[in-house]
Amino acid sequence: MAMNWLTQPCAGLNETARTAALARQGQLTKPPGALGRMEDIAVELAAWQGLEQPSMERVHISVFAADHGVAEEGVSLFPQAVTAEMVRNFARGGAAISVLARQLNATLEVINLGTVSVVEPLENVRDERIAAGTANFAKQPAMSADQCAAALQAGRNAALRAKQKAAQLFIGGDMGIANTTSAAAIACALLAAKPESLAGPGTGLDSAGVTHKAQVIARALSLRVVAADQPLEVLRCLGGFEIAGLAGAYIAAAQNGLPVLVDGFISSVAALVAVRINPAVRAWLLFGHTSAEPGHRRILEALDAQALLQLGMRLGEGSGAAVAVPLLQLACALHRGMATFAEAGVSEQN
Amino acid sequence: MAMNWLTQPCAGLNETARTAALARQGQLTKPPGALGRMEDIAVELAAWQGLEQPSMERVHISVFAADHGVAEEGVSLFPQAVTAEMVRNFARGGAAISVLARQLNATLEVINLGTVSVVEPLENVRDERIAAGTANFAKQPAMSADQCAAALQAGRNAALRAKQKAAQLFIGGDMGIANTTSAAAIACALLAAKPESLAGPGTGLDSAGVTHKAQVIARALSLRVVAADQPLEVLRCLGGFEIAGLAGAYIAAAQNGLPVLVDGFISSVAALVAVRINPAVRAWLLFGHTSAEPGHRRILEALDAQALLQLGMRLGEGSGAAVAVPLLQLACALHRGMATFAEAGVSEQN
Repeated sequence: MAMNWLTQPCAGLNETARTAALARQGQLTKPPGALGRMEDIAVELAAWQGLEQPSMERVHISVFAADHGVAEEGVSLFPQAVTAEMVRNFARGGAAISVLARQLNATLEVINLGTVSVVEPLENVRDERIAAGTANFAKQPAMSADQCAAALQAGRNAALRAKQKAAQLFIGGDMGIANTTSAAAIACALLAAKPESLAGPGTGLDSAGVTHKAQVIARALSLRVVAADQPLEVLRCLGGFEIAGLAGAYIAAAQNGLPVLVDGFISSVAALVAVRINPAVRAWLLFGHTSAEPGHRRILEALDAQALLQLGMRLGEGSGAAVAVPLLQLACALHRGMATFAEAGVSEQN
Repeated sequence: MAMNWLTQPCAGLNETARTAALARQGQLTKPPGALGRMEDIAVELAAWQGLEQPSMERVHISVFAADHGVAEEGVSLFPQAVTAEMVRNFARGGAAISVLARQLNATLEVINLGTVSVVEPLENVRDERIAAGTANFAKQPAMSADQCAAALQAGRNAALRAKQKAAQLFIGGDMGIANTTSAAAIACALLAAKPESLAGPGTGLDSAGVTHKAQVIARALSLRVVAADQPLEVLRCLGGFEIAGLAGAYIAAAQNGLPVLVDGFISSVAALVAVRINPAVRAWLLFGHTSAEPGHRRILEALDAQALLQLGMRLGEGSGAAVAVPLLQLACALHRGMATFAEAGVSEQN
């Protein structure tokens, strides 16, 4: 399957709009910089949208779900059946991301890239199962090259659908029992980090569980040396279908000028993969929250990213990014709706 | 003027509702604790509202504006005229808090407790001027006892109006050129802290300006020793009408079972005064954001508070609290709208 699209150029940012937005911020009735990151968000959105006064009304959320062969190593507290069960919960509106999508008036679709069990047809769920989960990467490569390419392409297709619907923001979410183990393994390979520095409690492992998880990752990394400068091969050997889907979606979003609000640990590892494959992707990424999963800070550092929220969330599904959406909307409202010093007849500083 | 209301009991929290909300959180389809502070917010709101499933629809914002005699010491970059000019800007909808109130569908009123200049009648602005600004506290007490009591009472009246309109949340905002100097001085007296540890750039002073500001505060503190255990006297000698208004509003809100979302540096100092006057007030306070004003962290520590947002904001007006309101609304939506494991047919952890 063709993968040459991955390294095609990303869209450019509109520096004229950025400059105009910056100038406007300097004229609004507040001390310069007093709105902090709310100002930065508005200016960044201006550069993305090519508008001095950007808006944030149409948010699209794609949740990628898939199972992981490494679950058989006992690295999660939850049974593997939960991945498919949660796909149903997403569709029926009972999951966190379903509730958040409704509140934000965002469009939500779920892409099943490979649950172990077949899921009956459900509204807003796309059945794009590549296999009944990945292979156990502690024993063999998680995916074949074709499987990895298919997952990346599925992500690309999701971003293209969002773009076609004129979405102004793409949020990717993840669901997959054992996927913090896969994400931590990828990050270890890309950052030359030790498993114990990136393995965390995930859904709630105790310290013995975290130690075991790190050992499983160490075993996987010892199976074969995958060079950090081969991000696609790292993804294929250690990844999951949903992580590859996210990486493909981020790359395609950046190529098509669709800004991305990245979620937590899993999503940020996918973003790291995407940026290692195509560095220009980075300019289209904003980061929603810092996860309680301890390894997330290290991933954010590697991406030179500071997330907007720190609320101790660690759920995935895109939930941490979704919770940050109102900040973008309020940033646009402030940028557009505040009066300038001249309009309001307010004195500027001495 | 009577001030005995200040130490009257605060409303109690509903521990039955808190327990029920906690139990519900444990049944929702997510790993326990995976929504972090979003879970805590929902549980806290349950205890405040006496409902297992709280809501957050009616938000009220009162902005207290007043001038400060200490402005004549050259402690702000902006001319004193800006206080009254911003009152007009609030009323006409051009200020940050005006925009945020519209976006949040919150009610907004401005209480002019003492601008230097008279402001013509304006919609949603209450003219309750106590004097043409406080006296310069670097030379004499900022307020008389009657003035301080009047400002506290004005705050109380604002909270009572909000309660009468069935507000579910009270946000207090501040506007007053030089009021970070007043707030820092109060905090120094209450926390036995050195002026240089709590004086900050405010609207944008350079380091020489901050040093001068600390010297002005040191001079004020040397005029007379006000004991830290006399918070009312600290407020009278070093405060501003708007800071006293905020403190009075917080106390009355707590007495009437109206939860408060505290804004930044000025508001948190007012909250510290309120809690020192009436410790039970603390249980009704949530903190919206950590200000870029460096002294704010120390005030939050003294209140044993962790703010929800850290976005580098330092504007006042209640803006940092307003930006945090969607978190409360999303927390309620998640708490109410997510399915339980049983409802969704999702397996619980092994």
